[in-house]
Amino acid sequence: MADVSLALIHYPVLDKNGQIVTSALTNMDIHDIARSARTYGVKRFYVATPVKPLRLLAEKIMDHWETGYGSTYNLTRKDALGLVRLEQDLDTTMIAVEREFGDRPVLVMTSARPGPNRTPFATLRCNLAESKTHHLIVLGTGWGLAPEIMQRADVVLEPVVGPTDYNHLSVRSAAAIILDRLRAAR
Amino acid sequence: MADVSLALIHYPVLDKNGQIVTSALTNMDIHDIARSARTYGVKRFYVATPVKPLRLLAEKIMDHWETGYGSTYNLTRKDALGLVRLEQDLDTTMIAVEREFGDRPVLVMTSARPGPNRTPFATLRCNLAESKTHHLIVLGTGWGLAPEIMQRADVVLEPVVGPTDYNHLSVRSAAAIILDRLRAAR
Repeated sequence: MADVSLALIHYPVLDKNGQIVTSALTNMDIHDIARSARTYGVKRFYVATPVKPLRLLAEKIMDHWETGYGSTYNLTRKDALGLVRLEQDLDTTMIAVEREFGDRPVLVMTSARPGPNRTPFATLRCNLAESKTHHLIVLGTGWGLAPEIMQRADVVLEPVVGPTDYNHLSVRSAAAIILDRLRAAR
Repeated sequence: MADVSLALIHYPVLDKNGQIVTSALTNMDIHDIARSARTYGVKRFYVATPVKPLRLLAEKIMDHWETGYGSTYNLTRKDALGLVRLEQDLDTTMIAVEREFGDRPVLVMTSARPGPNRTPFATLRCNLAESKTHHLIVLGTGWGLAPEIMQRADVVLEPVVGPTDYNHLSVRSAAAIILDRLRAAR
């Protein structure tokens, strides 16, 4: 079965008007997605932002949970945050995957929008079961990954949809559902 | 198909030492779970806390998104928060369901812990498809619903598990996965 990592991208992403922006790093994203990643056996959770002060702030908060007071207060939090690595962007993330796991990862882009050539969850689930190449699932913050990132996809996953036309899940909820669909025991 | 609502309970819940406590209301819980609820066609999302100042604060924040500046800034947020009702506890929530939908709801309790008589997701999914009675899915904050709430279950849903032994999803992530497993189109 293929190893899976996650990347959460803060630049380049879209805002609600379709402009390319750098989104703010959200502490709750790191905690929630790290816990989902740990639950579903994800190897690494890369949090990528080009804003160095935000990376330093995130590192400081994680230190609290990993080696500071929080590390004895809440062991499960420490366990999940151990998967997190702070990166600048998708390029440094790919280098980090290749350095640690030896593969150039298959890039799986996610989007809440429908479009051409989307891969169904069931197909990717089967491919992961049969593949031995590391897969990096890339999530966008804000209103989603910018086109210049989407274009680098090896695979574009179909959007998560429910029985309604509403497609505005939080990235925390979308990450949880995507991992459950791809990795839950059946 | 049965209508489904969600309840998020802040008392009585457990803390990490198994003591019964009132947990703090978390703004992100309301937003994330409302958006998941809206995605999966949930009728109402009841947020229950006995702490009146926290209910008033939550109402004030929701007013910002429903009628204040936020209502024009982000329409999708307004749409999701329209499902939210603030309640005191499980009893007032059940009265609210009965008043609005005409049924005493079937109480579906959730827990991250394994235990006897858990109903599999696939079974509840079938039952929802065949039933016409309103189902209220009850989620606990903190370290989960207190035994006195669990005992009132008509159904106790099996825990969400991944391929690891880690069972510490955030309630926001668990709610998203539970709705996806029960209500996603297949």
